[in-house]
Amino acid sequence: MATIAFIGLGNMGGPMAANLAKAGHTVKAFDLSSKALEIAAEQGCQIADSAQQAATGVDFVISMLPAGKHVEGLYVSGDQPLFDLVEKHTLVIDCSTIDAETARRVAAAGAEKGIGFIDAPVSGGVGGAQAGTLTFIVGGSDAQFELAKPVLDNMGKNIFHAGDHGAGQIAKVCNNMLLGILMAGTCEALNMGVKNGLDPAVLSDIMKQSSGNNWALQVYNPVPGVMDGVPASRDYQGGFQVDLMFKDLGLAMEVSQQSAAATPMGSAARALFNLHKSAGNGGLDFSSLIKLYQDAE
Amino acid sequence: MATIAFIGLGNMGGPMAANLAKAGHTVKAFDLSSKALEIAAEQGCQIADSAQQAATGVDFVISMLPAGKHVEGLYVSGDQPLFDLVEKHTLVIDCSTIDAETARRVAAAGAEKGIGFIDAPVSGGVGGAQAGTLTFIVGGSDAQFELAKPVLDNMGKNIFHAGDHGAGQIAKVCNNMLLGILMAGTCEALNMGVKNGLDPAVLSDIMKQSSGNNWALQVYNPVPGVMDGVPASRDYQGGFQVDLMFKDLGLAMEVSQQSAAATPMGSAARALFNLHKSAGNGGLDFSSLIKLYQDAE
Repeated sequence: MATIAFIGLGNMGGPMAANLAKAGHTVKAFDLSSKALEIAAEQGCQIADSAQQAATGVDFVISMLPAGKHVEGLYVSGDQPLFDLVEKHTLVIDCSTIDAETARRVAAAGAEKGIGFIDAPVSGGVGGAQAGTLTFIVGGSDAQFELAKPVLDNMGKNIFHAGDHGAGQIAKVCNNMLLGILMAGTCEALNMGVKNGLDPAVLSDIMKQSSGNNWALQVYNPVPGVMDGVPASRDYQGGFQVDLMFKDLGLAMEVSQQSAAATPMGSAARALFNLHKSAGNGGLDFSSLIKLYQDAE
Repeated sequence: MATIAFIGLGNMGGPMAANLAKAGHTVKAFDLSSKALEIAAEQGCQIADSAQQAATGVDFVISMLPAGKHVEGLYVSGDQPLFDLVEKHTLVIDCSTIDAETARRVAAAGAEKGIGFIDAPVSGGVGGAQAGTLTFIVGGSDAQFELAKPVLDNMGKNIFHAGDHGAGQIAKVCNNMLLGILMAGTCEALNMGVKNGLDPAVLSDIMKQSSGNNWALQVYNPVPGVMDGVPASRDYQGGFQVDLMFKDLGLAMEVSQQSAAATPMGSAARALFNLHKSAGNGGLDFSSLIKLYQDAE
């Protein structure tokens, strides 16, 4: 069992830290929110006074933060950057979804001080974080991947090694761009069928067993009532917010711009989620995009 | 066992008629090509001198033709329209992929003369036609569907009842529009990953087990070498041609226009396949769209 600092106890980080504690690790948890710290304590974590205190004398530092600037601030450019005090045997695992450029820059800054830093963004949402069934997509060396894997296994089901530093973020952004495209396409196809007299459940079943088959039809149908237990069947509450899909599609546009990789479909999907967000739906689950297609009642 | 007229013995119709003969039905086959008739005879079909001769005194007429104008010409508006001579107990099953408006118009013309006509477009390609594993998507009444199902079972694996007349064509066009979208999206995501240093097989595996999962990643990977036995691994020969995907996306645009169902993603996918076709790739398999994304060597 390891000693692990966990920084960032939000909707995702909170249950992830709890699963590490449940697995028997010593977890030193920190977050700016005292409410989040209280919950972490109930879940068996030790509470640290600061990120700096948490990150000292540990085998791993795991962070789960909103964006690249928070990650870079914490480790490199903030007031008391962790790379100034983290010990050399410690492996830093950043699970935040951030841009690959920042991930590579932070990894390089760590390497200069002899500290290992890998990107390990996750897929699977809050439900996956709670159930310990997340997918981790890791960018780092083979040795770093092997070191991190047993710890990630306590929080996830599928642990992938995408490639070198930054590759985890690239793979995640490619996946989530494709997710945005196929959700928009699924909304569009279902709406066209319904407007032409088809039953959405029948059309979903046909396409699921044909070449239109995709993740949205399998587990995340966007039409209310077609599938139980999905956001569409509870007024699009919970799930993966439009704001977060819009953020991820923005990261995809950055990767596209930096590498001149054409993204006509990803750009179109981003524009649709932007329109939907502008109409006031940023807080709804992203499958609510089908509302953008539907006629006013 | 039934007596069945089969009209249109092309790449799809030929093996479909052969499977009916193999199942023990009496198949009266007709095509304008004498070569196609020769092959049908070898497969156990009887050869008719004309569509009119084939369609007289049968339980079913099945047609597999290129476009709506051929179907309407054969049954309604041609020189010797079949609806003038088909007997009232005969059920007409049109398996062509045509526009839903024409399918409904032909069904209505048949109904006026007391002749049943259903649309039953297929999915599954030439391989599915040969193996007898096609998907049929039927538009017609419950009674007509029940009557047709045992015959369709001899040519396919999944037989769906999408709804009333025209619904089969609507469901097929919705599915194929979604297919065009997800193939374009998959090409785009894989190309972006590869341009940023990822291995296409690794990225495919990650997305297949994540929320980007779709039919293209499962059975039809567009990157050469990632998957055996797919068109991408044989220079995009065989499979489902760009020209046919472009035709189906055109049918989707017609349905969109007639019903004012917004298709921003389908329109974008259509534009991409159009660009790819214009560059001289109409005869390649549609997964070759990834060439449009790739940098010149």
